[in-house]
This record gives sequence, structure tokens and C-alpha cells, in this order.
Amino acid sequence: MDKKIKAFVEGSRKEILDELCGFLRLQSVSADPSHAGDIRAAADFLVNYGREKLGFETRIEETGGHPCVIMHGPEVPGAGRLLIYGHYDVQPAEEPELWKHPPFEPYVEGDVLHGRGTSDDKGQVWAWITAVRALKECGGIPCNISFIIEGEEEIGSRNLAAVLERCAQELACEAAIVSDTSTALKFRPTLHYALRGLVTFEVSLRTGAADVHSGVHGGVSPNAVCEMASLISRLHDDNYHVTVPGFYDGVRPIEDWEKKSLQDLNFDEAEYAATLGTSMHGEQGFSANERRWFRPTLDCNGISGGYEGAGSKTIVPAVCSAKFSARLVADQDPAHIMKCIRAWFESNTPEYAEMTFTEGGLSKPYLLAREGVGAEYFERCRKAIEAGFGCEPLFCRNGGAIGSVAEFTRFLNAPTLLLALGSPDDAIHAPNEKFELRNFFNGICMGARLLQEFGR
Amino acid sequence: MDKKIKAFVEGSRKEILDELCGFLRLQSVSADPSHAGDIRAAADFLVNYGREKLGFETRIEETGGHPCVIMHGPEVPGAGRLLIYGHYDVQPAEEPELWKHPPFEPYVEGDVLHGRGTSDDKGQVWAWITAVRALKECGGIPCNISFIIEGEEEIGSRNLAAVLERCAQELACEAAIVSDTSTALKFRPTLHYALRGLVTFEVSLRTGAADVHSGVHGGVSPNAVCEMASLISRLHDDNYHVTVPGFYDGVRPIEDWEKKSLQDLNFDEAEYAATLGTSMHGEQGFSANERRWFRPTLDCNGISGGYEGAGSKTIVPAVCSAKFSARLVADQDPAHIMKCIRAWFESNTPEYAEMTFTEGGLSKPYLLAREGVGAEYFERCRKAIEAGFGCEPLFCRNGGAIGSVAEFTRFLNAPTLLLALGSPDDAIHAPNEKFELRNFFNGICMGARLLQEFGR
Repeated sequence: MDKKIKAFVEGSRKEILDELCGFLRLQSVSADPSHAGDIRAAADFLVNYGREKLGFETRIEETGGHPCVIMHGPEVPGAGRLLIYGHYDVQPAEEPELWKHPPFEPYVEGDVLHGRGTSDDKGQVWAWITAVRALKECGGIPCNISFIIEGEEEIGSRNLAAVLERCAQELACEAAIVSDTSTALKFRPTLHYALRGLVTFEVSLRTGAADVHSGVHGGVSPNAVCEMASLISRLHDDNYHVTVPGFYDGVRPIEDWEKKSLQDLNFDEAEYAATLGTSMHGEQGFSANERRWFRPTLDCNGISGGYEGAGSKTIVPAVCSAKFSARLVADQDPAHIMKCIRAWFESNTPEYAEMTFTEGGLSKPYLLAREGVGAEYFERCRKAIEAGFGCEPLFCRNGGAIGSVAEFTRFLNAPTLLLALGSPDDAIHAPNEKFELRNFFNGICMGARLLQEFGR
Repeated sequence: MDKKIKAFVEGSRKEILDELCGFLRLQSVSADPSHAGDIRAAADFLVNYGREKLGFETRIEETGGHPCVIMHGPEVPGAGRLLIYGHYDVQPAEEPELWKHPPFEPYVEGDVLHGRGTSDDKGQVWAWITAVRALKECGGIPCNISFIIEGEEEIGSRNLAAVLERCAQELACEAAIVSDTSTALKFRPTLHYALRGLVTFEVSLRTGAADVHSGVHGGVSPNAVCEMASLISRLHDDNYHVTVPGFYDGVRPIEDWEKKSLQDLNFDEAEYAATLGTSMHGEQGFSANERRWFRPTLDCNGISGGYEGAGSKTIVPAVCSAKFSARLVADQDPAHIMKCIRAWFESNTPEYAEMTFTEGGLSKPYLLAREGVGAEYFERCRKAIEAGFGCEPLFCRNGGAIGSVAEFTRFLNAPTLLLALGSPDDAIHAPNEKFELRNFFNGICMGARLLQEFGR
């Protein structure tokens, strides 16, 4: 069967690519209201394609914002059900002068497809749609498949939770599949089995009724910026270990197979640092990948206080505020960590400053544990990746958070298989986004095989 | 003679006040180009008054910006020459809803004159003009007097240095007089014999090519805001003593008579803190007034880095910048202190961050030492204050810097007598500026007496 699929994909390369390019040309920029028509056209494109080419029951599910596309395949009795997630909206493509090719005129150069949305996420979505089509053409769809493809991922998936809650029954599934990430290393297909959770908050300090003249009053009253700096500097010790009591509560130890996986990556930290244009820095005693995937981190995301205009203004500022985010790992409880952080700020703020702590969002870390049914899912993904790419998969954690994954856990009680088809150098959210066609076509074959695995 | 002057002032109160109110009604806001006509009108007002009522040779000295008014009194052979400085421009009076009375409709309530510019500086200027007029009416002008009244003090005295340089010969004087400050305590007439110097600079840190995602990359690369916070927090030790080596070089020890003056002030730190809506805080081992008048201080005036908009943006910021000012005291050398500070930042910035240090302005601390001719000037001021106010003066240092004072030293090689007529609660630069008429009328008599002292 794998051979048949491969042959179909090989024989239909041009047609598949043409279809994807048609999808890419629709300028479905969710952030820009002037593209509302393109958003609608992209949703219609999917609904029509699913009905006509896949034989799915398809519909547009209206939301308060941009619509969701929901598609259900034919009933396959006795087989499992998978929910394939993706998004048809794309990032804006401002700064057209920085693009080598016009962002909405997809362009193939060698084995690379250039254009906005090629990697994030239209190209990845199209790999799954084409996998289903390949199965249909090569003997039949082997399991129960539903698609949910939203139009608001780039603006925070504002209505996804409501749709999942409303449609929980029809979307009930054994597992969800998300291809909206990048492989851990270029051309090394990856199952991401964990995501970090998130806690955001804002701290504001007031040290006086108003800014005062640094000459007349400098030396007598506290300086809000200096006090904030003092707080921020004490959040980490000299080893860049977070000093907040309880901050590491619940962190799952790194298992032996995970340590081995990390070693097998042969990750080049110096090269990685060069890509970011920075130096490696962080909690001592852990490698870069341990720090970003297995360890919670606490960052100040922004700070603002006093005079920020041109030239100088010699004041002692009375107010300073800063935004923070903490990234959490399995099995940490975001509410507990928020409490610990808040308590730390409360007890570390000097009595002469007034501190306001504003809680932001909480999101739970995600882990597909490699035990019980999880072990089976790992195995199925391994087989699918081997079939599609002809190589061993990487099993990796990921440092980010993906809103939809948290929602699938919450509303569908389903684990998520994060199968990355993007490449780390795809320049998503940036000018000159691109997609590796090797990942695209191998990804189609991988997808077909995974759906077969769930059909057995 | 003092009695005659007092009688004249008493008898002319209404007229003097009416003249001042006419001056105050001119909306000479230097920062706002739409008030250019009012600026010109205020300069004309002075030139005409000086010519008609004082019998001075008066003229408008054009500058690249708003004009200066220069006025010379009749030659008094054998007597000293004094240069009286002031400014006829005022701060904007935005936020009219916060003013109890319209800012440019001066309004007397009891012994208080309300309105923009009443204290800063039109009212104080008018006290000196009226002192000259009183002397003229009561027997003659006893010494050589020149006025320089600029129109750009509130926007940084941009052209004052050029005028002083150009007109140095005609403005040559024994001493300059500036009444553009506030008494150290309410209703306690004050000679400010020292000002702090100033060093401003800006520090910018870059820790990566661009902001990165705090999930994907959080934990591996340095955070520019956290690094800046660490630097700022290390500028002071636990006693809020500045840690920069050399920062206290050249600080003149507090003399015994200065210690006694400080004690005599009976300064209420708690009340002062309450006025500022803050808590007393600063270098340990020194009183609040020692800290702001006798000790150099280092403040961060503003900070900016990462995301400062609404909501959260989970980035590791790559850039953070902060503005600083150091206030210096006699006999510190600003260039040396700038060098020390720069060296500290250079040696304390970690190697993984790129630091840019931008030097701003330098201004020397000012001190009228109470020795030699200085002792004589102290004595003349004491007599004038006793004559005008009927009480002992305060001899105080001041924590601020006054640009004109530095210029008088530089271009005229003249010491400056800072005779404050403002009250610490005058709300200068703020809504509801006011001026105490007791300071105004007593100030006229004080001025007349001081001019007589220099005539002897």
C-alpha cells in the first residue's frame, strides 16, 4: 500500500502542487479586516475541495470571527477516529520590499516552495488533505477522519474553544493530529510529544505620587525603575536558576530515553546561537535543549518606566511596569506557579513601593507520556514517519505552547500527535516564508500511513 | 532708605500688582510655536517698561530662537556692576480643566497670586524690576545694573550661551543675580550658594539579532531586559551607595557651619516625604538634605525594552535601553565622573551582551565658597534679606542645576547670587501655579537693599 501511495504522489506532483498554489494565492490574512473576503474564499476553497475531491461531508461553522471548516469522512465501522487540525489563515505579509518573490504568488525554486502560508500552515494542511485523497484513490479511506481547519490561529484562535465545546460530540476522537510546527532539525521528521505551559503576568511599581526632579529631589526618594531592576535581577541567581520558592515544583525528571534522544540529536549549540544572532545563556547544569524543552523558564518580556523619549529628562521616575512570562513543563500546575510568583513579588517588594500584580493567562503544559496508549501512539508515528521519509523519527519536546492542543485536551479529552512538516529555517511570520517540498511530499505519504495505522 | 523703599512699595501695591498682572497675561509659552506672538509681546513689554519707567537703555537682542531682553541702567562711577538675570517665557498650561482659575488670568486670593508664570519666573523678575524702580523713585539707583531676561529658559536656554559670549563685554559684572528658585523652607528667604552638576548618558544593551519567542527559545538566549536590570541593580549597594569606582572623587566635605545650617533648618523629613507622596530613601548615613544637596546621586531616568503594548507578547527581548543622570557636587569634575561611569558599564556588561554607551551633557557643580569675596557676598545678602524680610536668611545648597549659572561662570567669570523668592509649594511647571505676595513685596525691598549694598 505504501508503494501505491508513493506512486500516486509521484505521478500527481504537478497537480497536487497546483492545487496547493491555488490555496496559497488566497490572501487569507486574519489580522487584516480588509482581507475578510479572502478569508471567506479560503474557507470555501476547503469546503468545496473536501466535498468534491475527498467525498467528505463538509461545512462552514460560523463563529463570532472568521469561520471554521469542519469536514467528516465516510463512516468506517470498527476503526478509530482521528481529528486533523490545521488553519487556513496566514500572517500578514507587510514589508513587500523584503520579499524576494511576491508573498501571494507561490513560486517553486528547486525543491523549495516560496510564499506566505507555505509552511504556516496551508502547506502542512494540504499534505493531510492530499494524504486522504491519495488513500481514496489507492483503495479507500481506512479510518474515521474529521478535519477542523480554523481561520483565526494567527490572531489567537479566539473562537476555537467555543467551536470545540459546541461540536464536541461530532468531533470526539481517539487522537488529534496537528501539523503546524517545525522539525527539530532540518529534514529530520519529528513527533513533538510535549509542549510547555505558560503563565503571564504584569508587575507595576509605584514609589511616589509623581515623577520628581532628579536634581531637587534626587537622592531622597526611591526610584521606581531602580526598584524594578532590583526585583528583576533577583528573580535569577548567579546560575540563572529561578529563585522563586516553588517555581520548580512538579517538574518531571528527564527520563533515560529522553536523555538518549537529546544526545542523538547531535545538536550544535554554537550553530543554533549563530542562527539567533546571540550567545547561549541560561540555567547552569542543563544543555540548551534541556533548558528550552525540559525546564521551566521565567522571562521579562518588556519593561517601561520613566522618560523614554528623545534626549534626556532628569527625573526620578515614580512608576515602572514590566511584563513577564513563565514557561512551564510537565507536570507543573500553572495556577500553583502563578501563586508562588505572586507571593515572591509580594514579599520582595520593599515597603516604600506599592506593587500591583496583574495575572494574565494560564496554560497547562502538554505531555503525551510514552506509556500505556501513549507508547502505542509513539510506535504508530514511528512507522508512519519511516514509511514516508525512510528514516527514524525524532521524538522531541517543544518549548512553545499551542492553543489548540490545550483545547483538544480540555474539550475532547484527546491527546494530540504533533507531526511537524515545517523546517526550522522556514521563516514563518517573517518575509520570504518557504516550505521544503521534500517535507511536503514525504509528509503526504507519512500521513497516509498513519491513517492506515489507525485503521487497523 | 529701607524705610523709604518700604513706604513706596506699600503705597504702590496696587499699581505694582497691576503691572505684574499685565506681564502675566501675555501667554509667553516658549515651547509652543503658536505663542510666538505672545513671546514677542512679552519681550516688548519689558523693553518698553525698562525704557519708560526705569530710564534704562533697553533693546531686544535677537537669537536663533526667542529673543533676549538686555537693559542697562545709568552709569554709576565707582560702584560695582550687577547683572540681574530672569526669563519671561513660561511653561505651557495644558490641562486647563485642572486649573482652578484660568492660567493666564492672574487672580489674587488673600496673599496669594495665582497664574502661570507667577512664581516661575515673571513674578520674581518683576520683583527686581520694581526694586530698581523703587530706588529710582526714592533717591536714585546706587550701582551699575544690567538685566538679561531670556525667552527660552523653559526650553533649555538654547541661545543664552551665544548671547553671553557675544555680549560678554557689555555684560561684564561683579556678580550675577538669579531669582528663579524656591526658598528652602516656606517664608524663609534663602541664598542658594551651591548647585549640583550634571552628567547624563544613555546605555543600550543588545543580546541577540532580534527578539525571540520565549517558548521556542526561552531559556537559551540572554534577555536584554534582565541583563539591563542586573546592571542597574548593581549600580548601588545595599546602603544605596553608588558602587562605581571613583564616583565620589572630589566630593567636598561638609563644613561645620554647613552642618549647623542644616540642623537649624529643622527640616521635617516625614512632611517632605508626604509632600512628594513618597518615602524617604537613599544613601545611608546621610540626612535627606545632605543627600540631595551635598552628595552626588545616580538615577535611572527611564527604561524601555521589549514589548510595552497592551496585553502580553511572549518574547525574550534582544534590546533594552535606559537613560541615566548623575548629579554631582563641588568639587567634582563631570568629565572624570563620566569616564568612571563609562568604565564601570564597560567592565560590568557580560561578554554575551553588546553595550552602547552614549554620553549626554556635562555640567559643572557650582559653589560660591564662603571665603574671600564669597564671605563678603554672603554678608551683603544677609543684610538685604534682613532688611526685606525682617528675618535671618537661610544659606542653603540646592540640588538642581541652573544652566544660566554655569554660563555666567563660563562667559562672564562671575559668581551668581541665587536669591530665591519662590515658595517650595508654588506648583511651578504644574497646574495652579501661584506666588506668595509676601515673598514678592518683601523681595522688592530685599532687592533694593542688595543693590544699595553693591553701591557702597
